[in-house]
Amino acid sequence: MLPSKLAPRLTSFTTRRMYSSSLGNTTAAAANMKLLYPTSLKLDTKSLEGFSTELVPYDVKAPIPDAAADADVLVTWCNSADNLKDAAAKLSQLKWIQSLAAGPNDVLAAGFPKSVVVTTGSGLHDRTVAEHAMGLLLTAARRFDEMREYQLQKKWPRHLGGPQPDRPKDRFTTLRDANVLIWGYGNIAKTLAPHLTAWGASVKGIARSAGVREGVEVYAEDKLAELLPKTDALVMILPGSESTRDVLNKERLALLPKHAWVVNVGRGTSIDEDALADALEKGEIGGAMLDVFKTEPLPESSRLWTTPNLLVSPHGAGGRPQDAEALIAYNLRRFLAGQELKNVI
Amino acid sequence: MLPSKLAPRLTSFTTRRMYSSSLGNTTAAAANMKLLYPTSLKLDTKSLEGFSTELVPYDVKAPIPDAAADADVLVTWCNSADNLKDAAAKLSQLKWIQSLAAGPNDVLAAGFPKSVVVTTGSGLHDRTVAEHAMGLLLTAARRFDEMREYQLQKKWPRHLGGPQPDRPKDRFTTLRDANVLIWGYGNIAKTLAPHLTAWGASVKGIARSAGVREGVEVYAEDKLAELLPKTDALVMILPGSESTRDVLNKERLALLPKHAWVVNVGRGTSIDEDALADALEKGEIGGAMLDVFKTEPLPESSRLWTTPNLLVSPHGAGGRPQDAEALIAYNLRRFLAGQELKNVI
Repeated sequence: MLPSKLAPRLTSFTTRRMYSSSLGNTTAAAANMKLLYPTSLKLDTKSLEGFSTELVPYDVKAPIPDAAADADVLVTWCNSADNLKDAAAKLSQLKWIQSLAAGPNDVLAAGFPKSVVVTTGSGLHDRTVAEHAMGLLLTAARRFDEMREYQLQKKWPRHLGGPQPDRPKDRFTTLRDANVLIWGYGNIAKTLAPHLTAWGASVKGIARSAGVREGVEVYAEDKLAELLPKTDALVMILPGSESTRDVLNKERLALLPKHAWVVNVGRGTSIDEDALADALEKGEIGGAMLDVFKTEPLPESSRLWTTPNLLVSPHGAGGRPQDAEALIAYNLRRFLAGQELKNVI
Repeated sequence: MLPSKLAPRLTSFTTRRMYSSSLGNTTAAAANMKLLYPTSLKLDTKSLEGFSTELVPYDVKAPIPDAAADADVLVTWCNSADNLKDAAAKLSQLKWIQSLAAGPNDVLAAGFPKSVVVTTGSGLHDRTVAEHAMGLLLTAARRFDEMREYQLQKKWPRHLGGPQPDRPKDRFTTLRDANVLIWGYGNIAKTLAPHLTAWGASVKGIARSAGVREGVEVYAEDKLAELLPKTDALVMILPGSESTRDVLNKERLALLPKHAWVVNVGRGTSIDEDALADALEKGEIGGAMLDVFKTEPLPESSRLWTTPNLLVSPHGAGGRPQDAEALIAYNLRRFLAGQELKNVI
């Protein structure tokens, strides 16, 4: 219950808030900063109000309008290469680009001056990519993909149902007691790991720097030769860069047990696709669930379409930034205050 | 560090344990109780030693051997109807049957005297059925089944990848912020719910008795008409009985939103399959992931093979009792002590 003597103070507080809110709008109208936000996704721009900044929508597939040429901040999402090239030439006062992509290679390739700070959307895709990886792991364990294939032939996949051994050592059928190794132990892995552990999996990680992260033992790459032979499911979440190119190669695939599955929700460049297809065709590993490929969409000529025990997922793990407004607002406040931004490349 | 004065006591304790262990074996040899255990699954019989009970393996698909006719306890798993009929006739001293199935209809139909106590394997399948349900939910959200179908035609399912809306209201694409309703809120549901919640789902339950179970609001069936219209994914985990026959019927399906998915890992009898197929063909609901059917294996003539947005999973959620030894040992001790057994029907 509210003591009655507090009521006048609360009324006064409410009045002040309303006044303050009007003031905010007035200030925004007199803004001397301009932020361009993309219409390629639905942004709740109300969550970006309250700063001395004019918020201007723009089309990421069209040239930058002349009226927007004095923008200070550019938020990007799925921009066309032409749009970015145009922006690099036209936005002469640009100081900061906030990409909503985890790896904004498009922005880096567009020719913006080096003085323009670029921040990434790292973190906006953690939950959705982790959820996709979890789904792919369970699809690998329970073979929902194979069930669908049988169904299309009106066949009951007897080997996937009815009485069956519990946690056989020579197959990956459950997360319970499974050894899951996450290669590329960043924020997505940190989001995924507790879910795997909750189902009874034993999770280990590989990253550039070793250490214990939130209870998970993370090793450097030099421990791969020791860890791969004990892995039931290998989850790849590596970024695309020259240092990660073809890191899952023939030699490392050969270290995996015969029943092991590979899940890739990072970048297609990190796997030697021919070596993987060879291993699958020879039955040297259990299977692969791939959301990313060297060439996307996968060309019709690719042998991966028909490689046994391989699922083609069409780069669908991420692609939907979550809570982007919170990141933009966080960085915008810091930008206006002259403080260091989050996710600077 | 161990105080040195404790060392003699520890040595003595070790000696006693070894002696006691020998004694255990001697006692077992002089057993006057006999337990028949099935060879239809791998049991760690070491976990059943230490009782004054002789442990005898038997073939669940063959007649009971004469030498086993004086058994007191029968553990069943995937027995043939003939074997159970033979057991009912031959095991004249039988006092207790421990089935490892959650619903041992086979045992109940075999003609054992009413004096024989039957206990179920309820609880042994919770984790594996819950894991399968989780996999089916994520397959529904991310459409791994549809991806496989596209792959078989060497087609890239563009609509399932690339940039896409985050948590659209008119589709079930993620567990985050999804309303999941579990109908049949027993132990499997209790195992599943925290995993759904951890991914951001809002979980509610339906059961015979309403109440809050481990933080989840569980309602009686009279609330269905109110809850179904707000459901993004309906998970059915109902047992097979006359009272649950066709409970998901045309009228209730019509209450679900157009984008809602139905997952069934309980019993096929609980869904009016024709009403479900009608709803899917008319696009009145989003899809269905079925692990159980009225007739299994699904007959070739079934329309469910080709019903759109429906996955046929071949009753593979359970079928692998977990930690059966612990339940048998728990109940065997209580049986020998004359105490009430767990999971009595």
